[in-house]
Amino acid sequence: MGLPKDGKIQIGQIRKGNRNLITDVEGVRVGHVTLNDGKIKTGVTAILPHGGNMFKEKVMGAASVMNGFGKSAGLVQIEELGSIETPIMMTNTLSVGTVTEGLVKYMLSDNEDIGTTTGTVNCVVTECNDGSLNDIRGFHVKEEHVLQAINNAASKFEEGAVGAGTGMVCFDLKGGIGSSSRVIELDKKEYTIGTLVLANFGSKKYLTINGDKIGERIYNSDTEGTDKGSIIIIIATDIPLSERQLKRVANRSVVGLARTGSYLGNGSGDICISFTTANKLKHYPDTKIIDLKMIEENSIDYIFKAVGESVEESVISALYHAETTTGINGKTVKSLKEYL
Amino acid sequence: MGLPKDGKIQIGQIRKGNRNLITDVEGVRVGHVTLNDGKIKTGVTAILPHGGNMFKEKVMGAASVMNGFGKSAGLVQIEELGSIETPIMMTNTLSVGTVTEGLVKYMLSDNEDIGTTTGTVNCVVTECNDGSLNDIRGFHVKEEHVLQAINNAASKFEEGAVGAGTGMVCFDLKGGIGSSSRVIELDKKEYTIGTLVLANFGSKKYLTINGDKIGERIYNSDTEGTDKGSIIIIIATDIPLSERQLKRVANRSVVGLARTGSYLGNGSGDICISFTTANKLKHYPDTKIIDLKMIEENSIDYIFKAVGESVEESVISALYHAETTTGINGKTVKSLKEYL
Amino acid sequence: MGLPKDGKIQIGQIRKGNRNLITDVEGVRVGHVTLNDGKIKTGVTAILPHGGNMFKEKVMGAASVMNGFGKSAGLVQIEELGSIETPIMMTNTLSVGTVTEGLVKYMLSDNEDIGTTTGTVNCVVTECNDGSLNDIRGFHVKEEHVLQAINNAASKFEEGAVGAGTGMVCFDLKGGIGSSSRVIELDKKEYTIGTLVLANFGSKKYLTINGDKIGERIYNSDTEGTDKGSIIIIIATDIPLSERQLKRVANRSVVGLARTGSYLGNGSGDICISFTTANKLKHYPDTKIIDLKMIEENSIDYIFKAVGESVEESVISALYHAETTTGINGKTVKSLKEYL
Amino acid sequence: MGLPKDGKIQIGQIRKGNRNLITDVEGVRVGHVTLNDGKIKTGVTAILPHGGNMFKEKVMGAASVMNGFGKSAGLVQIEELGSIETPIMMTNTLSVGTVTEGLVKYMLSDNEDIGTTTGTVNCVVTECNDGSLNDIRGFHVKEEHVLQAINNAASKFEEGAVGAGTGMVCFDLKGGIGSSSRVIELDKKEYTIGTLVLANFGSKKYLTINGDKIGERIYNSDTEGTDKGSIIIIIATDIPLSERQLKRVANRSVVGLARTGSYLGNGSGDICISFTTANKLKHYPDTKIIDLKMIEENSIDYIFKAVGESVEESVISALYHAETTTGINGKTVKSLKEYL
Repeated sequence: MGLPKDGKIQIGQIRKGNRNLITDVEGVRVGHVTLNDGKIKTGVTAILPHGGNMFKEKVMGAASVMNGFGKSAGLVQIEELGSIETPIMMTNTLSVGTVTEGLVKYMLSDNEDIGTTTGTVNCVVTECNDGSLNDIRGFHVKEEHVLQAINNAASKFEEGAVGAGTGMVCFDLKGGIGSSSRVIELDKKEYTIGTLVLANFGSKKYLTINGDKIGERIYNSDTEGTDKGSIIIIIATDIPLSERQLKRVANRSVVGLARTGSYLGNGSGDICISFTTANKLKHYPDTKIIDLKMIEENSIDYIFKAVGESVEESVISALYHAETTTGINGKTVKSLKEYL
Repeated sequence: MGLPKDGKIQIGQIRKGNRNLITDVEGVRVGHVTLNDGKIKTGVTAILPHGGNMFKEKVMGAASVMNGFGKSAGLVQIEELGSIETPIMMTNTLSVGTVTEGLVKYMLSDNEDIGTTTGTVNCVVTECNDGSLNDIRGFHVKEEHVLQAINNAASKFEEGAVGAGTGMVCFDLKGGIGSSSRVIELDKKEYTIGTLVLANFGSKKYLTINGDKIGERIYNSDTEGTDKGSIIIIIATDIPLSERQLKRVANRSVVGLARTGSYLGNGSGDICISFTTANKLKHYPDTKIIDLKMIEENSIDYIFKAVGESVEESVISALYHAETTTGINGKTVKSLKEYL
Repeated sequence: MGLPKDGKIQIGQIRKGNRNLITDVEGVRVGHVTLNDGKIKTGVTAILPHGGNMFKEKVMGAASVMNGFGKSAGLVQIEELGSIETPIMMTNTLSVGTVTEGLVKYMLSDNEDIGTTTGTVNCVVTECNDGSLNDIRGFHVKEEHVLQAINNAASKFEEGAVGAGTGMVCFDLKGGIGSSSRVIELDKKEYTIGTLVLANFGSKKYLTINGDKIGERIYNSDTEGTDKGSIIIIIATDIPLSERQLKRVANRSVVGLARTGSYLGNGSGDICISFTTANKLKHYPDTKIIDLKMIEENSIDYIFKAVGESVEESVISALYHAETTTGINGKTVKSLKEYL
Repeated sequence: MGLPKDGKIQIGQIRKGNRNLITDVEGVRVGHVTLNDGKIKTGVTAILPHGGNMFKEKVMGAASVMNGFGKSAGLVQIEELGSIETPIMMTNTLSVGTVTEGLVKYMLSDNEDIGTTTGTVNCVVTECNDGSLNDIRGFHVKEEHVLQAINNAASKFEEGAVGAGTGMVCFDLKGGIGSSSRVIELDKKEYTIGTLVLANFGSKKYLTINGDKIGERIYNSDTEGTDKGSIIIIIATDIPLSERQLKRVANRSVVGLARTGSYLGNGSGDICISFTTANKLKHYPDTKIIDLKMIEENSIDYIFKAVGESVEESVISALYHAETTTGINGKTVKSLKEYL
């Protein structure tokens, strides 16, 4: 099939960013904690929209629920307020409570006003079910892993079976973390759209890479035919967008997803969160009327195209980077690379 | 009960605008065409957000569907694009098609580019069912009434059984058009919130005026106990708001509505459209990145309070101004004033 | 590329219905009125969910707004009440008002109670913009075409540049009406999922047929690169579904759409309406508590897969059947067949 | 003002259930854990829809987000799947993570298949911010309190400053848990609608009891004028409703809320969850097509009225039962009874 040696596939027509990672959006960083020991195949991933105090300086954000069969926390408030005020965490489904608790404590340690002189904090914690490889009932993710993942955050980060992606399965192949980016020009200035996925969905026979229905060839009859699991998609950009526009952008992530072979299966909690670093919202604003910027609506078309391409590539990149893994009950899930 | 002589009731604690009408928001105008002849009790009302070309210079807007048992046109695009590009029309339910056609033609006559060099136009046409007083099956509203209503628009306008309100019934009393406004201060500058309703909902025994459950007293056993009809609520303001904030504001109209005795009855299409004149959107923008303003989120609380008060007062004002009317099949619906 | 001679492409893995049309769902019929004369390239298409009185016996339905940049009428009430009580009409964007008026009159002629002893009626009228081939500003669709389209309804119907599809353009090729169906088995009984599209979206270079990015080859530099226009998708089934399930099913239409090369472009009003003939709702029910059936949730997966395949095939079928057309200003849009 | 001695106020016109509590709906039980010790003023409340295994036999449910400025968990999946598969928990905002973790562990202990042979579980955990009386940064709610609250569940339960309501403040008075119920007849059979609130919203000067704006009299100038906090509303019924109907019912809770003086203030996460015990959904169904029942749509009007009345009364009942409380930093919040 000829995947390029750097693990990045040529999908679409728009120019990629330097790293071809979500961290091509300036200020965005990603950190992992990988728990990989015998039947323990899980972890935590943190996406940091910027390097400052997220509570004091929120980013504008939105969420798109393509399939709500999922347990992610914090989406309701993003919808109402159009802002994100914590790092975005990823973990396994049954650990959302623990990670929420860990994230609350991290936020409190940084902000003495939360719960005393000001309100509380909306923790954004997303998840997929890694129960087929991981001892998910063992609750191996601990509160301290939240802080570690945040501290590990950097502009360079690994893809594949790492962090929250350690135990994930995608198209009956080893899934996990994938990322990509695109660069577009507006008013003669360059802007970046970056995406990151936690890929844990699909059944092998539907896998499609850049139009090639490879899944029909690598499928054999004893593999399961239903779309289990889920996908979490994060979109970051430095393009000024209003909250409504951010939601429109998030709603386009389904385009890239569908092209990889997803049919938004019943059991798949398919959720996208988007944010822009261009419109920051102060927790304690100086004035009651504040300035912001947005894109004029026709030009949003460029972003829609870029999102489709970058999400599609992020999924394939997750598959490409994830190594064959043996987890709970001796179950082995193979890497896509074994079929190429 | 002591309604003030000018027909305006003292509801709430916030200062009213000069006219106590939606047209206290600068640039907003309202025009009626009243069709009142025997069994014909219907009409058209136009709300103009500003005096320029609405298609070339759109206003930011949002809609809230409290009860979607209604046939209003144009809401889907308002939700997606956060903008309004035509006058907002009101009429009876079965005339939405005719008024849409009339409004399309009005917009085309003003804009040669629509349907040729640019896209089409999203007509906003709202409705309530005036079939209990009006010969609604007779289709007495004609296309030309759209243009007339728009041409009649002024900052001074009548309330009560006029325009689209001619045949409306509210709490088994004569309903119709009502309006009110509130003034608040932000960063030492005065801003206005104005509301207008087309009131056609409620059953008499639930009518509540400023907390007084007057409906329990004026109710008699032969009146119908279900909440039929609908209400359309328009909120205008000159406060800078994002599309998401405009939706939050529209979502608060239910507060004023509930206080008058509505329980959002099954058959009542309860819909609110809000817009701000502060953020105008050019159809042909000069740059791809554009500036706008919004309110910092905590201060939106003042607007929420004002909306509750102004919507509540608008409904009561509609009842107060609407005169006893006899329509189709000799049916008479009395004015609230007959019970005071 | 080898399209089969009957114009139906082999997409996906699920068995097709006998006609491979939406009318494989028993009782569903489709009728066209084609207006094709010089610069007039437009029309009306009617989809009838069953052969009885739609107002007296409604079908359960739902809508999914993938991109709300559209002017379709009736969606708000479908969302609230989960039912459809008229034929579903398709036409050009500027004729929604006229078709609504015609549909109201058709419904009134059949139902003397509407607007007198019972409430009003929610007309479902969908649209795409055919302005690039059609003299859309000329308002050539008339009220009487509604009745004609309904009267023309049959289980056998044409695809391509007919009815509402007469002037539509899709991937810069001639678009229009396309349809397909799939058959699945539940509890040892066969059920059908049928889809019909009014395809008017896409830019040529993105066209993808069954994974083959053919658009990259047939694209030439002087064609427009943005996704203009829209798509309306109708899903019919005889599988018992609740309103919530019908919405989930409608939400999956995007999967098939994305696979043809759509990226839900800014200007494209992408809307899906789904209905089941299994759960009918009487306007005058005999009892206050009524029985219905639904599918157990895991099995809905089969429907999701079938919807993805059938929608994808419907779009390609529209392209395959639509003949090269010359319309207003002498503009010619070629058939896909010219490139095969 | 004359509150009846049993603490129940006469609100509305519909007959109340025997206990005038949510537990008048057969099978529903409520349990509290109250943590009340010095600056610790918090707790946990569990609402159990039925007495069996909630995961194996889910109830149909829906949610209405009136104001999404809140951190409740589990709402996204309720919206997608229309079902509830755990007890509904209530606690303070910063303890949502801990209670989710405790609830996951409770569900796992009862269901060995979760996370192994079947999927995961959607924990429903709601919250309000009790930080003005409680040492909310101290994390005094522990995992074991979840199990205790569930074990404490009974058809008889306390209202006021108990369970999750221990530290809540409502209209600047002591708030907490309140409940009420209504009985209606359909097809000659009696059905019950029960409501329960966790009331933590409002500013004193807006408090309205049954139309009496008592807040204007008991307000004094040094109290805060903004609507802080939140309200969680639970609606239970044994009336057969579809998921869509359950959402319509949940959407009417705002009516009762508005009548008590709420204006859905910016900072108030106002959320309602509704469920019916009539349509149970098996995790392992016997057939792929299943039977259910729903109410014919016109009759839902009775439920809407009942919900408005019962929610209004639940809020007032919370205020009536909550005793004056002194919490963190010596802050005292008075009972409504001190003003009567």
